[in-house]
Amino acid sequence: MKAQSPLARVAVVLSRTSHPGNIGAAARAMKTMGVVDLVLVAPRHFPHAEATALAAGAADVLERARVVPTLAEALAGRTLAIGFSARGRDLSHCARDWRSAAPEAIAATIDGPVALVFGNETSGLSNEELLACQRHACIPANPDYQSLNLAAAVQVACYELALAAGAFRVPERAPRTPATGADLEALHAHLNAVLVASGFLDPAEPGRLDERMRRLAARLDLETEEVAILHGMLDALARRR
Amino acid sequence: MKAQSPLARVAVVLSRTSHPGNIGAAARAMKTMGVVDLVLVAPRHFPHAEATALAAGAADVLERARVVPTLAEALAGRTLAIGFSARGRDLSHCARDWRSAAPEAIAATIDGPVALVFGNETSGLSNEELLACQRHACIPANPDYQSLNLAAAVQVACYELALAAGAFRVPERAPRTPATGADLEALHAHLNAVLVASGFLDPAEPGRLDERMRRLAARLDLETEEVAILHGMLDALARRR
Repeated sequence: MKAQSPLARVAVVLSRTSHPGNIGAAARAMKTMGVVDLVLVAPRHFPHAEATALAAGAADVLERARVVPTLAEALAGRTLAIGFSARGRDLSHCARDWRSAAPEAIAATIDGPVALVFGNETSGLSNEELLACQRHACIPANPDYQSLNLAAAVQVACYELALAAGAFRVPERAPRTPATGADLEALHAHLNAVLVASGFLDPAEPGRLDERMRRLAARLDLETEEVAILHGMLDALARRR
Repeated sequence: MKAQSPLARVAVVLSRTSHPGNIGAAARAMKTMGVVDLVLVAPRHFPHAEATALAAGAADVLERARVVPTLAEALAGRTLAIGFSARGRDLSHCARDWRSAAPEAIAATIDGPVALVFGNETSGLSNEELLACQRHACIPANPDYQSLNLAAAVQVACYELALAAGAFRVPERAPRTPATGADLEALHAHLNAVLVASGFLDPAEPGRLDERMRRLAARLDLETEEVAILHGMLDALARRR
């Protein structure tokens, strides 16, 4: 990740976290998505061995984490704070689904540092905490069971953010050498000849076999080397008879 | 979730999971996204108290989980198996990023049951396990630290799947009563009059104040009730002087 990545201007703020293991798991989730700035508001236990254990390879995120007594202090230098809430509309703010709102958060990093704010495991963000955020976001979930684990919510939030930033791409695949139309016609002709010679196919009444084989071959996205292997197999089977 | 949801035709298959806590956390992650069919291939410990504890409200997913000795058995009745791998291209299969591949998985549920397959925490899916899958998918992640926790990977995978299925929507917000153009013009006129009367604004040299205030007001997306409150404030402040 480059230093100038938008992700470098985003912090995750965890407010009043009860379980230190969740802090460590959240740090790990963050780092896998390139977000490394963690702020802890009045955590019940921190530092803690369980946090370190669950952070795994993200111990550096914990070491650099800032602990502050109030959410106001955590947000003092931030120009956009987005509070995550699973609750419906009991506040007048409009909560947007995070997938549609994440690009706005990335754009806002141009103007200043951004915070993603998560509340306590049991109660989530309080109304007061939500009112300290300029935006509210939610992660669409099963209405019968929306209880994402805190670190799981951080994982999804940072994943969406990284994708909105275009931060990480699946490595380019090696180029394939797909068969050409001529390759495929030659293969169908070879198959046809072998099947006629074997007696499987009666050239007087071919039915729809060629159509079926072409339908199947179309799905194969054959490569030139695979076409060569298939020609070799057909030759060998024809010789065998 | 309706019974005929595509998500009802998707199973998560966890192969050779070492830590029972991860099985429980994965079950929780699945259920939050409406995926409830869990298959465990040769888990080291299951059932286990730690799995149950971390499943939280998803204990029913664990209770219904099927334990099988081999991946082949887990996939026997499935018509599409998607193996998740963080590894690059050491296999000839092409791994696609899951966001772009998830809609195909949803479409495939029309034809038959689908499996999302995850390997062991330390080593991931083996080459042999990957070859038993017709598709490979990966979750884009920080190349410097791509080590998503198993349950975190399941969370992201099921989240993408649920979004691809359009399964859960953020609840509709209550309709707002936005101010009209006439409301805003009246407010600007009122503000202007009060500022002139107060001496803050010299009508002979208004400068760009009106432009700045309109720029600000445009960002507010004012509601009719808020316009009324602002008129009242302006009246009160004008009276005060």
